[in-house]
Amino acid sequence: MMKLLKGIEVSKGVKLQITNTIKELEEMDKFPQLGIIRVGNDPSDISYEKSIIKNCDSLGIKTKIVELDEKIDTDDLVSAMEELNNDTLVSGILVFRPLPKHIDEEKVRISINPSKDVDCMHPLNLEKIFEGDITGFSPCTPKAAMEILLYNDIPLEGKNVVVINRSMVVGKPLAMMLLEKNATVTICHSRTQNLSEITKNADIVMTGLGRAKFLDDKYFNESSIVIDIGVSLDSDGKISGDVDMDKVNDKISMVTPVPGGVGSVTTSILLKQVVDACKMN
Amino acid sequence: MMKLLKGIEVSKGVKLQITNTIKELEEMDKFPQLGIIRVGNDPSDISYEKSIIKNCDSLGIKTKIVELDEKIDTDDLVSAMEELNNDTLVSGILVFRPLPKHIDEEKVRISINPSKDVDCMHPLNLEKIFEGDITGFSPCTPKAAMEILLYNDIPLEGKNVVVINRSMVVGKPLAMMLLEKNATVTICHSRTQNLSEITKNADIVMTGLGRAKFLDDKYFNESSIVIDIGVSLDSDGKISGDVDMDKVNDKISMVTPVPGGVGSVTTSILLKQVVDACKMN
Repeated sequence: MMKLLKGIEVSKGVKLQITNTIKELEEMDKFPQLGIIRVGNDPSDISYEKSIIKNCDSLGIKTKIVELDEKIDTDDLVSAMEELNNDTLVSGILVFRPLPKHIDEEKVRISINPSKDVDCMHPLNLEKIFEGDITGFSPCTPKAAMEILLYNDIPLEGKNVVVINRSMVVGKPLAMMLLEKNATVTICHSRTQNLSEITKNADIVMTGLGRAKFLDDKYFNESSIVIDIGVSLDSDGKISGDVDMDKVNDKISMVTPVPGGVGSVTTSILLKQVVDACKMN
Repeated sequence: MMKLLKGIEVSKGVKLQITNTIKELEEMDKFPQLGIIRVGNDPSDISYEKSIIKNCDSLGIKTKIVELDEKIDTDDLVSAMEELNNDTLVSGILVFRPLPKHIDEEKVRISINPSKDVDCMHPLNLEKIFEGDITGFSPCTPKAAMEILLYNDIPLEGKNVVVINRSMVVGKPLAMMLLEKNATVTICHSRTQNLSEITKNADIVMTGLGRAKFLDDKYFNESSIVIDIGVSLDSDGKISGDVDMDKVNDKISMVTPVPGGVGSVTTSILLKQVVDACKMN
């Protein structure tokens, strides 16, 4: 039987940690608050924002939403950031990205106070990830993927893990986190040749292609463990992961569903980093 | 016939670039100078220092050596760094590492002016490498290894490249540089299982194990290209790479010798970064 690695269980565990930390913080008269900067009204930003606020409300984390006009220039955006940096009630700051093209994203990245950088966008925080130091903030998606492996007691030491994605928000940080757990890591991408040969020989495949149902049973073996980080729409317009679930069904060992897998843990990771930031600052 | 990828030819090419840049700089009344900070009298530091000075002299790059007592504390070392940071005649700064254990190396790393950081120790410069941006300074050893591939027109796009090393000075930056060239990259290390199976199936193996003659013909195939970054002493006390040259002889396609391979290009890369720093600042 193929095991479904559902995110909800993992997310519950993370939320329990959050609740416990909030209790500790209350005793110190500290109250976590997430500042969110949203430029413009992109529907996916708004939908993510709503989900974050709902989760914050249910856990007792305050939110402060800074809505900015999509025509704002870089300097004014940096000023908005500095206001949140200086607001002692704000524990962590999230900026929805990608930002409009006229904005100098580099300037925005370095303007965030690294100790409030709960989405890990500041170069100094990313460099720590490069070094394998995950005691600080991590990019939320790869951290969520790691959390699923951890929660399910899936061993990584000496295992061959293939990561299909080489972005700074998913693949590269994920590869560094896996190395830290002593996995042997192969990073694949759009230019990789013989992808199926590489994935078929791996113990674990972590994919963030963003191509609905691209990976069928030919890419795996019967003991494959697959963490699906891809999110895209299939030909019927339904949200789908990279894995063709019908074709791999019972032909691999474990897989995360989409939706209900990695994505459902990501927000919990973000909020855990908000309460951790509140604790540290 | 197995091709020996000698460093000397590559180094000559890099030195020609250096000479040309120095001419350009002279016309702008700019003169490159390398500042070196050495703490204590470690024989390998002194030997490397001598070799750097010799190379600088032959190319027309000035050097400024700052010798510090091995008992110096972190604050005084940082002060010495700041002096070189503020010295407008110094284009680039190299600090021999590892530093004595009582020194807080993190404080030293962030004290260097990133625009003089020719050995790429500052977190901001390393984060650029993580992002795949190699327009700035790079760690010299992995950059030298890449230069050998480039000089010999060895294609990387879509190739399977195995890196055996996961350090911040060799393996991790090297993996990022290879990804930037669209290679599929596998990072191996001491905990990797079935190393020979992994290396045997690769197009290119770049090894920095530091175990003399550890890799024999069982680790390769007849078309293997091997870049040997390992340096250690063999049982006869001779400097040796990771590859057992006698055993692989004529059983693989290309290999860099040790000595005379990657190591002989490293200093040229360092000095190229010094003249580039002089040009930029």
